Amino acid sequence: MKAIIILSLIASVALAQTKTKDLAYFCPPCHSGCDDLVFDKPGPCPHCGMTLAQQTHAERKTEMSRKPITVCFYLQDGVEVLDFAGPMEVFSYAGFNVFTVSKTKEPILSQGILKILPDYSMADAPAADVMAFFGGNASQGFDESVVSWIKSREKNTDYFFSVCTGAFAFGKAGILDNKTATTFHLSIEGLRKSFPKTKVLSDVRFVDNGNVITTAGISAGIDGALHLVAKLKGENAAKEAAAYMEYDKWVPKEGLVLSGNEKP
Amino acid sequence: MKAIIILSLIASVALAQTKTKDLAYFCPPCHSGCDDLVFDKPGPCPHCGMTLAQQTHAERKTEMSRKPITVCFYLQDGVEVLDFAGPMEVFSYAGFNVFTVSKTKEPILSQGILKILPDYSMADAPAADVMAFFGGNASQGFDESVVSWIKSREKNTDYFFSVCTGAFAFGKAGILDNKTATTFHLSIEGLRKSFPKTKVLSDVRFVDNGNVITTAGISAGIDGALHLVAKLKGENAAKEAAAYMEYDKWVPKEGLVLSGNEKP
Repeated sequence: MKAIIILSLIASVALAQTKTKDLAYFCPPCHSGCDDLVFDKPGPCPHCGMTLAQQTHAERKTEMSRKPITVCFYLQDGVEVLDFAGPMEVFSYAGFNVFTVSKTKEPILSQGILKILPDYSMADAPAADVMAFFGGNASQGFDESVVSWIKSREKNTDYFFSVCTGAFAFGKAGILDNKTATTFHLSIEGLRKSFPKTKVLSDVRFVDNGNVITTAGISAGIDGALHLVAKLKGENAAKEAAAYMEYDKWVPKEGLVLSGNEKP
Repeated sequence: MKAIIILSLIASVALAQTKTKDLAYFCPPCHSGCDDLVFDKPGPCPHCGMTLAQQTHAERKTEMSRKPITVCFYLQDGVEVLDFAGPMEVFSYAGFNVFTVSKTKEPILSQGILKILPDYSMADAPAADVMAFFGGNASQGFDESVVSWIKSREKNTDYFFSVCTGAFAFGKAGILDNKTATTFHLSIEGLRKSFPKTKVLSDVRFVDNGNVITTAGISAGIDGALHLVAKLKGENAAKEAAAYMEYDKWVPKEGLVLSGNEKP
């Protein structure tokens, strides 16, 4: 018995030593070129300034190797800047693989200010788990070619996510038929009038129909994106993203309407 | 006396009729190409979907002709997307004239995702009332050439505004010397260590030194930008922007530290 205890103790010490030896300091994944660096002491990352965290190499490898959820951000000319940037920040921190798509690969102008080069055109964009549409210039931006493209991708898309008047794109593609939805506060009546088969709610932050999530205007996209992270990766992952972003007023599920409670 | 009353009444009716005749419907300024359109009845804007508002032509002209406050958004390669997009949304809605600057005019990659074409390089950027710096890739992004450029513009800049680790740029340029500041929660110690002449506060949303405003991380930039709008255009302008963006949890002055109360 004594021998077994001693052997166990030796094994534990050896394991602890191996673990200690395997420990190192890493930058929280930030996509700034320092995610692959390894440090031997704590402190701020000399590359991006963030505080290094202690992990074993194995833990780090697991963290970095998880197959990411892919999100296609469709950005039309005139897209509202915070509409897409809020969810982009959330999904990126949550480890989702985000790429941008527009009608063509020509630069677009977000909100008349920010010149963006899309990663893909509609013609060559890869499939994605989540298709996301945003507001701004909704009537001009979502013409028949865009609507056809959404329909052509419907079968291979798991989740549809819209912020603000991005809901009009999904409405035109029939994705909101017989569903409950919301949009930007000044466009509630417009959405109702355009899509009579959709039950349109005002004064809600976002509506979850299972695989179709529509949010209210502009900053509400942050809440909707955190909700989608909670749904796909658990509430802790969403809480971590909110804390990292210092979006400290966020309360999980606050402002949520599940369409199950709302018969369209 | 009777004649005066009758004349006054006639004048009032004539004025009211002129005003009624001059009334029309306009889209809330959205920079989507419909700000110059005039409509004769209420409803959603056929261009962007927003609800049209009734104004006289004179009111509209005054609204559109105010000399805008200019804001230079310095975007380094690796800049965090929500850091700059939150303030960009706020300043844009408040009618500020926003433009982007980077070291060169080459495209930059925000957060490893979003490809952006800057409007100007450091060499040809016009002067601006507000100089704004943002976080992400702070150590690599703010080299000696950037720091010299900030110093060269100091005299012609009225306000310095940083979000997240953008504070490091101002720290390096000496703008934070003998001032109180804040930064991203994981970089508080780094800022303290790098700039011992600066009093660095943790657990605050933003710090206002009069003409130098530094905010905490990422989403805190929205609050700091609303604060600057309130400071320059009045609290109502900031409240309108917050309501438009559906940033309905915003409470004016919440999280503010005025450095007058904090001796560095």
